[in-house]
Order: sequence, then C-alpha cells, then structure tokens
Amino acid sequence: MFHILPDRSAAREIPVSLTLSMQVAMNHATVREQCDLEQFVGLCVRHGITQVALWRDKVVELGVGRAKRLLADAGLTVIGYNRIGPLLTNDAAERRARLDEANRVIEEAAELRSGCVFVFPGGLPAGSKDIRAARAQTFDLIAELLPLARAARVPLALEPLHPMLAADRSPLSTVREANDWCDRLGCGVGIVVDVYHVWWDATLQAEIQRAGRDRLLGFQVCDWLATTKHLTRDRGMMGDGVIDLHTLRAWMDAAGFVGPNDVEIFSDYWWSRPADEVFRIAVERAKETLLR
Amino acid sequence: MFHILPDRSAAREIPVSLTLSMQVAMNHATVREQCDLEQFVGLCVRHGITQVALWRDKVVELGVGRAKRLLADAGLTVIGYNRIGPLLTNDAAERRARLDEANRVIEEAAELRSGCVFVFPGGLPAGSKDIRAARAQTFDLIAELLPLARAARVPLALEPLHPMLAADRSPLSTVREANDWCDRLGCGVGIVVDVYHVWWDATLQAEIQRAGRDRLLGFQVCDWLATTKHLTRDRGMMGDGVIDLHTLRAWMDAAGFVGPNDVEIFSDYWWSRPADEVFRIAVERAKETLLR
Repeated sequence: MFHILPDRSAAREIPVSLTLSMQVAMNHATVREQCDLEQFVGLCVRHGITQVALWRDKVVELGVGRAKRLLADAGLTVIGYNRIGPLLTNDAAERRARLDEANRVIEEAAELRSGCVFVFPGGLPAGSKDIRAARAQTFDLIAELLPLARAARVPLALEPLHPMLAADRSPLSTVREANDWCDRLGCGVGIVVDVYHVWWDATLQAEIQRAGRDRLLGFQVCDWLATTKHLTRDRGMMGDGVIDLHTLRAWMDAAGFVGPNDVEIFSDYWWSRPADEVFRIAVERAKETLLR
Repeated sequence: MFHILPDRSAAREIPVSLTLSMQVAMNHATVREQCDLEQFVGLCVRHGITQVALWRDKVVELGVGRAKRLLADAGLTVIGYNRIGPLLTNDAAERRARLDEANRVIEEAAELRSGCVFVFPGGLPAGSKDIRAARAQTFDLIAELLPLARAARVPLALEPLHPMLAADRSPLSTVREANDWCDRLGCGVGIVVDVYHVWWDATLQAEIQRAGRDRLLGFQVCDWLATTKHLTRDRGMMGDGVIDLHTLRAWMDAAGFVGPNDVEIFSDYWWSRPADEVFRIAVERAKETLLR
C-alpha cells in the first residue's frame, strides 16, 4: 500500500534548507513598512521561503492578476489572505457595503488560491458599550459570508485576538470561543492560532486539541516581550520574549496541524530594520525556537 | 418572621448621600500619587466615603497601629488590603522569605479588620518561559498561605488580572480559573472581580454566577479606554470607556454580592489631577454608571 503522506523517517534526510522552506512562512506584515509585494517576493526567493501570507492593500497596489503571476513565477504558495473586515457597524447600509466588499476579498483569495481568508471583525461600533452584541453580530456576519466562502472553496479563518484588543479590533478573544463558533457554523470555517494573542490562556492546549486537524488553518508566530510598550506595535522576534514557542508548536503538531510557522511581527523596531536582516534573523530564530 | 437583610422597599428611602457612601468605596491607588494615608482618610470623610481599600506601603509609612486608630476615628471600614506578593521566584530561600512576608501582611490585614487581603503572584521568574509552571507554583504558594489566612479570619482574594499582564504581573487571567482554584482550595479564599481585567470575557457572567455570594470578595471599577496607550497606567474613569458597568454590577448583584463598588484607577492622567477633584468625579460617575 502506498501512502500519500511522507514517511517520517525519510523526512529526516531532507536537507535543512528545504525543511526550513517547508516550515517557515513569511507574513508580509512583518516587513510591510519596508517592502511592496514585488520586493517581498524577491526576499522570499532569496531566503528560500516558499509559503507566504499576504495583505490585500499590497496585492491591490500591484493588481490581483499581476500578483498571481508574480507568485506563480516565484513558486510561492499563499497560505492566508488578509483580510475581510472590519465588519462591525450599526449602520444597515454600511453593513451591506462591508459584506459586499468581504465577498470581493473572498474572490481575490480564491484567485490567489489562498489557503484561507482571515476575518477581522473590528472594534465596537461607535458609542457602543455592548461587547456581547458585537460578538453576536460578528457571528451573524460570518454566517452570512459562509455560503460564498464555501462556494469559492476558501475557508474563513477565525483568529482569536488578544483581550487587550477586544474594544477596537475583535470581540473574539479565545480559541475556546472560536471552537464554539465553529461547532455552530459547520464546514468552511476554521481557526488560526496566533501565539501572541493566546499564549496566556490556561485552556489553550485543550482547545487546540479540540480544534484538531480539520479546523486548524494556520499558526502564527512572534513573541511576547516581558516589558511590552505598545498594545499593537511592540511584538517581539521569536526568542526575545516569554512564550514557550516549542511547546505551543508541539500542541499544534499533536492536534494534527501540518502547516508552517507563519512569521507575523507587528513592531516599530523590526519595521525600522532592513528587510533582508529581518528575514535572515526570523529564519534563524524560527529554527532555534520552533523546529525539531 | 424578621429578616436580617433590609427590606428593599425601605432602602429606597435612604438619602442618596447615605446610599452612595454604602455603595462607593475608594481605593487608595486611585490617588496614590497625591495623598498619604492621612490625606486620603480626610478626603474620604469629606466626600462621605465609609469604605476603603488600602495599600501596604501607605499603611506602613504611618504605622499599622496609628493607621488603625485613624481609620476608627474616621469611621472607615477596610474592605481590602493590598497586598501579598510578588510571590513567584525560582530561588528557594527567596521563596521562604516571601512567604514569611506574606504572613506578616495577613497579620496586618487582620489587625486592620480588612475584609480580605489581595494576593499578587507576580510575573514569570527571571529567564522563565513556562507560564504553566508559574501557574502551578502560584497555586501551591496560595495553598501554603491558606492555613494562616484561615486562622486570622482574613480571606485571601484571588484577582484575575488582564491577560496582557500575564508575563509580568500574574499568570491567573480569568474568573473561570479562579473558580477552579477555589474549588480545589476550599474555604478561606475568594475572588475579587476587577472590571478592567475581565470585561472582555465571554464566560464572565456564568463565572460570576458560579462564584456566588460566598466566594465574591470584591468588585473593582474603572473603565477600559477605547484607545488605551499604556498597559498599566492608562485606565479610564467610569463612563469614559467601553465597559458596560451597569450590566457587570447587575451580574454581581444577581450572584448575591452586596459589597460596594471599589474605585481603583491606575492612570497617569488621574494621578495628575487634584485628589479632591478625582474624588468628586469618581463619586458622580459611580452614581451615573453603577447605581440603580
């Protein structure tokens, strides 16, 4: 009998550089201040990266068709497309407009053959103090988007964001709740685990296991700096903070996740460094902190 | 049959000023930069506040005995004493020293007849990336302190802190986990709900209900500013942020909690204002956002 999955003993003999290219993905956000899409793709090729997470503004700047050819020529696979949203609003016309735009984002993600498309609910509508309503509205919006995502064969990625971002980014804060939503929504929706947002959660291991292979769409890595100075622009390079990345990756592996480590670092510091240096250090650090 | 609890219809006739003094407690932290303990007590008397939460550094500065007489003369009740900790360390001798100091804090809290004493685990020990170990160590430390707290008849207050403080303040982040710990620890330990730390949690209502009257030791109020600029020094005055304070208080009421709203605002802005103004605005805002 022939297996489609590679024999694990054989995998040990894959050259390190190839193993790395399979296991480290680069997120354009990490060098968004330094690079347009063409520069980003050039750096990926130079550093042996074959999987990327893209951002819509950078893709649209070049044009979706040209971006698609550029990626194909470079041999890059798109693991995730950022992003649908913000969605939350209390204005009915605006709600319709945002859903229409979300549908265009799904179509672009399909065109780029992205592994998933990220959903970004946004913050509480202006004047609202009702996070429970925002949560319910977010769930309903995702349910409305789901048929098109299913038709386009691009799963919607729910990404629990850190509770410190609950007011202005997303009311979905834990993998546990994302799992509850997935239970209710059925196929076509899954979960991206970003270590930065969920590393503190005592229920994380159990909820990653609960999500399992079919539901886990991505694994994003950076680090939590012990003395964090800003809520959104002070993430750390892997190894510079307090997250036990190796253990979190092991939980993903144990749940059946086989995707890469998507390096996503929002940081004024790393945005101020040469992109080539950021790539080099990120690949080194991924190797030190995440690979077995 | 006579009831010990006051008749609710009669309570409506209590003058507003007296109702306020029963329902608003002031935490010295809110004006810690402006006032020593004597100044703080003077402001409480002037503003009709009869319940206070105190901080050890301010009490020790005056002396515990003098503080006790000062509070008694002013007719003030101590609802909570800050604090035991930080406790976490990987050094055995240091661990013993911190437990000894914690025992002295419990004795001081008993001397002041405080309603509870806060436990503050502290951050991950230097060099550690193991939040699970820190969590287990915290639990063990609390279990070690519990016999003395029981003997002194001062309950230990577990206070879940915001997940953004998991690295450097406390690995206990949710009321759910605090409830799990209380289940295992038995009597002599309870939970303080600070809205700032837990407002985002989708399980909050259920976990407050689960905690119930016997376990709920306090309710701390301030607000989460939509554009928070600092992780520890940018809390908002009640009404200036996005927390639905009225609903959270209603959940506490429904669970049987009868204590006051303890105003605890860590804020560079409010620390820069005259203490008398802070008191006046805090009492007004508590009335607007919390009282029925």
